[in-house]
Formats: sequence, structure tokens, C-alpha cells
Amino acid sequence: MLSILKQSHSGSSSSLAMPRGLDFSQALSEIAGMGGGGGGDLQELRARPLTERRVDMHGFCNPGDFQRSPYLSARGNIANVFRGSTEEGYKAYHADKYDEDKNPNGIINFGTSENKLCFDLMSKRLTQTDMNLMEPPLLQYPDWKGHMFLREEVARFLTYYCKAPAPLKAENVIVLNGCGSLFSALATVLCDPGEAVLIATPFYGGITQSVFLYGNVKLVYAYLDSKITGTSTRPFQLTVEKLEKALQDARAEGVTVRALILLNPQNPLGDIYSLSELRDYLEFAKRHELHVIVDEIYMLSVFDESATFHSVLGMDRLPDPQRTHVMWGISKDFAVSGIRFGTLYTENQDVANAVGSLCYFHGVCGPVQHKVAQLLRDRDWINQVYLRANHARLKAAHTYVTDELKTLGVPFLNRNAGFFVWIDFRKYLRTGTFEEEMLLWRRFLDNKVLLSCGKAFECSEPGWFRIIFADKTHRLQLGEGFPEQ
Amino acid sequence: MLSILKQSHSGSSSSLAMPRGLDFSQALSEIAGMGGGGGGDLQELRARPLTERRVDMHGFCNPGDFQRSPYLSARGNIANVFRGSTEEGYKAYHADKYDEDKNPNGIINFGTSENKLCFDLMSKRLTQTDMNLMEPPLLQYPDWKGHMFLREEVARFLTYYCKAPAPLKAENVIVLNGCGSLFSALATVLCDPGEAVLIATPFYGGITQSVFLYGNVKLVYAYLDSKITGTSTRPFQLTVEKLEKALQDARAEGVTVRALILLNPQNPLGDIYSLSELRDYLEFAKRHELHVIVDEIYMLSVFDESATFHSVLGMDRLPDPQRTHVMWGISKDFAVSGIRFGTLYTENQDVANAVGSLCYFHGVCGPVQHKVAQLLRDRDWINQVYLRANHARLKAAHTYVTDELKTLGVPFLNRNAGFFVWIDFRKYLRTGTFEEEMLLWRRFLDNKVLLSCGKAFECSEPGWFRIIFADKTHRLQLGEGFPEQ
Repeated sequence: MLSILKQSHSGSSSSLAMPRGLDFSQALSEIAGMGGGGGGDLQELRARPLTERRVDMHGFCNPGDFQRSPYLSARGNIANVFRGSTEEGYKAYHADKYDEDKNPNGIINFGTSENKLCFDLMSKRLTQTDMNLMEPPLLQYPDWKGHMFLREEVARFLTYYCKAPAPLKAENVIVLNGCGSLFSALATVLCDPGEAVLIATPFYGGITQSVFLYGNVKLVYAYLDSKITGTSTRPFQLTVEKLEKALQDARAEGVTVRALILLNPQNPLGDIYSLSELRDYLEFAKRHELHVIVDEIYMLSVFDESATFHSVLGMDRLPDPQRTHVMWGISKDFAVSGIRFGTLYTENQDVANAVGSLCYFHGVCGPVQHKVAQLLRDRDWINQVYLRANHARLKAAHTYVTDELKTLGVPFLNRNAGFFVWIDFRKYLRTGTFEEEMLLWRRFLDNKVLLSCGKAFECSEPGWFRIIFADKTHRLQLGEGFPEQ
Repeated sequence: MLSILKQSHSGSSSSLAMPRGLDFSQALSEIAGMGGGGGGDLQELRARPLTERRVDMHGFCNPGDFQRSPYLSARGNIANVFRGSTEEGYKAYHADKYDEDKNPNGIINFGTSENKLCFDLMSKRLTQTDMNLMEPPLLQYPDWKGHMFLREEVARFLTYYCKAPAPLKAENVIVLNGCGSLFSALATVLCDPGEAVLIATPFYGGITQSVFLYGNVKLVYAYLDSKITGTSTRPFQLTVEKLEKALQDARAEGVTVRALILLNPQNPLGDIYSLSELRDYLEFAKRHELHVIVDEIYMLSVFDESATFHSVLGMDRLPDPQRTHVMWGISKDFAVSGIRFGTLYTENQDVANAVGSLCYFHGVCGPVQHKVAQLLRDRDWINQVYLRANHARLKAAHTYVTDELKTLGVPFLNRNAGFFVWIDFRKYLRTGTFEEEMLLWRRFLDNKVLLSCGKAFECSEPGWFRIIFADKTHRLQLGEGFPEQ
């Protein structure tokens, strides 16, 4: 699929290349022309109306310019509209999905953060005979925190992969149907309506709806930017100073902040925090009695051996263990976002019990709990087969995309974790506004390429985009004899 | 398991009888003595403290007498305590669970509404080869309303079993991980915080937490009682007059009521509404512009052919189709409460879309969606094998328990649907208070029998209990050559 990048660059028409439409670089060339100063295209683009259902994330607590349904509550109307706004691209995608055979001119989805490189391995493992258990206890109501056999397995798994200094405990583990649910539950039990959680931007935008739709919890932003100045030695570097400022600003406005969210590895930047950075963030939170929600959902998707991931569960000492809550799931690291499974590790039994109550709404099927436990306990397969192949494939796909970007002369952050590259398209915006960014996003979509624009991550600088690279490379490159196949 | 009822009555010691403890009728005899006027036992019982964590359902929005956790929000504290109060019995049960081999003196659970009579059939069906599909689309993020193949199957299934006058439409179907989640989502999108939903008591108490924990929605009660007077020709009969009164009372207190919940078949009563009753309730709702949430989760658990269930989806004309929302799931009718699957049918696309947004938190695994679709489309197996066996087993178990109750001289409602019998223990309470009811409940628990007391269903009359009969009868009676084995 990514050979479309190569296609327009090389001008060659390989048998693997898409005939038309799937044209990341064609769209790019067009936009490049705009950036060059011609402006004609841009005028035309500007004339096209922004979607009427666009709702500013900042303001979506007070929806204004949309059709209110008389059948829904105020928050029901927000849920209704919210879906419309965030899913505009996905709606277009679902209506015109690319398919090698059935719809070769359809939209390619570089927007959803999924690993599509390992379905072969996962399908095979998940259909082995040990997976297919249907005993009565699996068919009955479970403990809503999860079956104990699974919580024990998760504790062992995290102890091993997070390099915990002492064995983690099953009673501190909760399992539920995904980390979105976990954000919702944690926001609800840690914050009252209208209270807030601190997070650095850009960040995975789904968190906004996760904490708001049920919980009515707001996010307070620590804005990072690409400038390298002062204590920032890399673009979008998270520093305690920026967290302090955001917290003080929020407090000055009368906002009660209850928690800090850390994403590690970071989505969309791909950053991995060093141990000393982690310690600084956790100490900051402790000083202000903030809970810390650490989302480590990409922890096993660090695909370059030169990079080392540190889980907070691997730290010798947590500054504030009763306020430190760690989440992980299998959707990213095991390339199965359709298998809804997320987990929380917390030593705080009040938090565990309160989240446990809400788990009634986030239950995982018993037979799936068995499958996940079988998967997590198969350490040999994970280490010798799965992670080796997955990391090699991720690395190859990442190299492929970043090489294309280099050739096209497009700047980006070169990182070693996650499924995404954070791309700097700022030079293609003439005046550097979010409106232009949206137009560029839509121009890509018109050219059948779905990306995510920086605004969706609350990025403070217009012009940044996230592209997902963990997609189909192995299939498209199969004919070229890609080594790890 | 239920032979314990027979055991103490007949005095015989069958090989199937439990050696001690599982002693419904022993507890009953003891209590009967109390009712006789001796009072010594009762004095002793009264001296025992009520659980400290008991929270009155009515008041649980304003928790008073419990230890507040400094780590949790106000609502987080409620979630924490709520769990503690409702699950006291289940906690005891989980700590001392009856097991034929490993813990023959443990607690028997007659409290959880599960059908344990059909695990053999379901295990067999769910492990057939057509079930075990792991294709990539099932492993990727789904449409949060559910995969279209499943929604189409649900539409066909409901069209058939609800006897819909015209084919139901897949786009009106939403699937998610259980009806508890559906109550939560519907309450949230139909009501704003502090608003209310009308329901007749006694009702399945889990609805209270389902609408409150996330949604902060209250229930307003239409109190039914056992008296047969006026338009009520059966005990606990739901009438429009009672609904009208409850609605007017709530409005007089300034409470905004947005919806009416109907349970059909009713839990815990086992009532099935006639078409004309249904029409009356729906017309009442229409007059007051109330949404109606119709929970038909026991619709295929009508085990006597003399009884006819009418789904609102089978009505020729819905009085207010845009405000009528029907839920169903497989946990009860297919005896698999561990497989989290519920579904909503609504013609209102605003409601569907708003609930669809919240479905992000209630996702069902892709491979499970496939399994459920396979199950629902296997009409031959359902009709010829499963429902025949299930209904015969339910009927036999119901007959067994009700015959015992008759022999013991305990009054009860004799119905033909669901897994429960609504039992009148009022004569065993001396002064007829809920405190005595709780003592009786605890006396049963002390005798290793977990029941549900009327207070848990917000019953207005102390002394009513729900017993679940759909439990293990077929195994206990296996040696007696039970016909449907």
C-alpha cells in the first residue's frame, strides 16, 4: 500500500501500485504547489465550506451551531454531534473503503492507529486448540474486575515485561474491555463533573471523549511545541515547567485538576520517556497531589533495539504509589484492536473497587478472558515468534515510510515506538492556520488518503499530521521478497 | 441442589441431598418458629448488627455513614460503597462457594439470575467449527454500533421471534456488551444529571446502578403491592393509574421524568403483559412524551406453552415509535451471562447515534460478534434443539421448586416466565419491617443459602423474596432419570 509513496516519486508503475486515487504523494505535490505561492488552488480550497458538524474540542461542552435533537438530553446531543465530528473521516472511509480486489479506488486508512502487520500470526495463535474453551464458569457472570485466572496472568505478564522489582499482585489488576473504557472509569472515580485532568498536547484525541462523554471531565492542556529552547532539547519535549505552568493557569481560572495523564510511548510523537524524566513527572504530580494515569499501551511496540522503554511499574520506588495507576491493553502490542481488552494496575484499593463497580459496564466475555490469559502466558511464542516478527515488520514499515518522507523532503520526528510518524507539513500552509490544516486534511481525503491532522491531537502548531505506517506493507511488498516474510 | 427442599420435608437422606448447610427449609423452619411467637430467636437475631456498609437505595445519591476515601471523587466514593453494599451477599458467596466436590458445605447461590440448566447445549454449540473464525476484520476496530453482519442477523432474529409485522432494519440495531451497559447509555443520552426514569417496583435492582453510576439518573417508583383491589386483578399488577400517580407525584416534587422502563417478562414477578396492557402503558408514555425503554431480555424464557409473550416489536402500530426503544440480550435466553452481548432496537436515529458514541465504552470483541451471529442464525438448532430442551428444563425446575413451596405452605406467585419465583415470606416477619426482612435474608445466608430480598427490588411490602430456580436441577436429579435428560 505504501508503494503509492514510491509510485509518484519514481514515476514507475509497479504491478503493486494502486491505479489512482490512493495518492498520498499526488495530494502532497498538489499542496506543495500551493505552498509554493501560486495560491489558486488554495483560494479554491478555501471556498469549500468546512464541515457544518465540526465542533471545537475545547468548546464541545457547550455545543452551539448544531441541530439539537428534541429526543435527547443536552449531553445526549453532545454525544450525537461529537460522533459526527470526530468520525467524519471514518464515515467517508467506511463508505468507500479500499480493498485490493473489490474497491481498488477506495480510501486508504492511514488514520486509525492499528497494527495490520501481524494478523497472520495472531489468527494462527488465537485459533489453536488451547484457545477454544467453553467451560461453565466462563459462561456465567464473572467477577466484574475480571476472572482471577486472567488477573493472575496479567500480573505475571506485567511483572516480566515491565521489569517490576517485585512480583506484581493479581488483586491490584482489573481487566475490562479496552483502555478507552478505563479512561472513562478512572476519570469518573477520580474527578467530579467539571473537574479536570492535565495532559500534554499533542496527544491521542480519543482521550477527550473518553473522559468527557460519561464523566463530564475536562482536559487541561500543557502545550508542547516544536521549538528547541531552554530545557527542551527535542521538539515537543515534555518538561515539568510546562506541566507546572498549565496547572497554575488552570488553577488561576478556578479549574480543579485531579490527575495527570502520561502516554509512554507517546502517541502521536513516538517519544519514550527516560527514567529520570518519568521520575520528574511523577514527583511533580506528587507535589500537587495529582493522580497519575500512565498509559503504556504501546510498551511492546518499541521496534528498535537501540531504544529502551521504562515502565513506571519497573521503577524501584514510585513517588506516590497510591496515586499511580498504570494501563495497558493488547489492541496495539498484539495487533488485535477488535479484541476488546484493557487492564489497570493500581495499588489503591479504593480506586480499584470504584473502577470495579463501573466495570459492570465494561465487561469482557468469559471465553475471551480465557483466550487472553492463554496468549499472555505463552511467553515462548511471544518472545521467540511474535515480538521478533512484529518488531522487524514495524521497523521495516517505519523505514519504508520515513525513507519516502526524506525523499519527498518532508520533515518528521524519527522515533522508534508506536505505529505512527509525526509529520511536519507546515511549509504547505501559507498562513499557518488550523483552517488551512483542515483544508489540507480534506484534500488528502479527496485523494483517498485518510490521515489525522494535528488539531485532532490538540497540537498547538498548525500543520502537523500523524500517519500510521503499520499497515499492509508486508502484503504490498510481498512480491518484492521482503526479508521478514 | 433443590432437593434440599425435599430433604428436610421428607426426612429422607437421599444420596443427592447435601449433608448440611444448604438448608433452605431448615432456615425456613427456624424462622417459622419465630413467626409462631416464641421470639427468642428473633431477639437474638435483632441483636446482630446490620451490615455497616448498607446504603439505602433511595439515599445512595447522598451517602452518609461510610468512610470517605480521600483518593476518590464524590461519585467515585459512591461507586466504591455501592459495590460494597449490593455485593455483600455475593462476596460471602464467592468466599465460600458451594461445589459438589471441593466445598460441599459452601453457600448455594439462589440469588443471581442465571440459567445454569443449559451449559451442556451451549458449550457444544459454541465450540463447533463454524464458531472459531479469526479473520482480520474481526481483529480490527469495529463500527462501535456493532459489525453490520451481526446487526443484520439481530434484525432478522428479532423480526422472527418478536413476530414483527414488517422486517426490522439492521440500521436500527445497536449491539454492545450487555443490557446493563444499554441502560447506562440510554439513561445518559435521554436524561441529564438529576433527571429521572419511571419504573414500577418491585424490579430488577441492577437498573438502579445502571442508570446512576455513570449517568447520575434517578429512578422514580410506581409502587405495586400484593393487594387485589379496584382495577388490580392480580398481585403487583401494573396499571396506568399507578404510573400516572407516580409521575404526578414526581412532578409535584420538581423531578423531571424523561422515560418509563418496562420489563417484559417482568423480573422478579415473572409477569407477562397482555397486548392491551402493553398498549395502555405505551399510550400513557406517549401522552406524557416519555421515552419507553422496554427490556425483553427474558422473552424466550417463557417456559409454558399456555403463556404467550408479546414483544412491542410485534405490535401492529407503536403509539410513539420515535420514543420506543427495545432491548434484548443473550445472557438469559441463551444461558450465557458470561458472554457479554446486548442489543438495542430503536427507530430513532438520534438516539441510535448518541448511544453509538457511548458504545465506544461498551464494545464487544469481533470474534464474539461472529459467534453470536452464528448462534442467532442457526434457527433450526434454536427451535428444534435448544428452546425445546431449555423450556422443558425450566418448567421442570420451576415445578420442582413450586411444589416444594406448596408442600411447605409458603405462598408465591405462580408464573411461566423467567428463572425466578417471587415468594411471600411475610408470615415469618413478626412486625413486618424491612429490618426483619434483612435479618431473615441473613439467616438464610448463615444457613448457606443466598436469596434476594424484596428490598433489593424496592418492593414496598417487607417479606417478599426472589429465588432463582434455574439452577442445577437437572444435575441433581440426573440419578432420578429426569425425562428431558
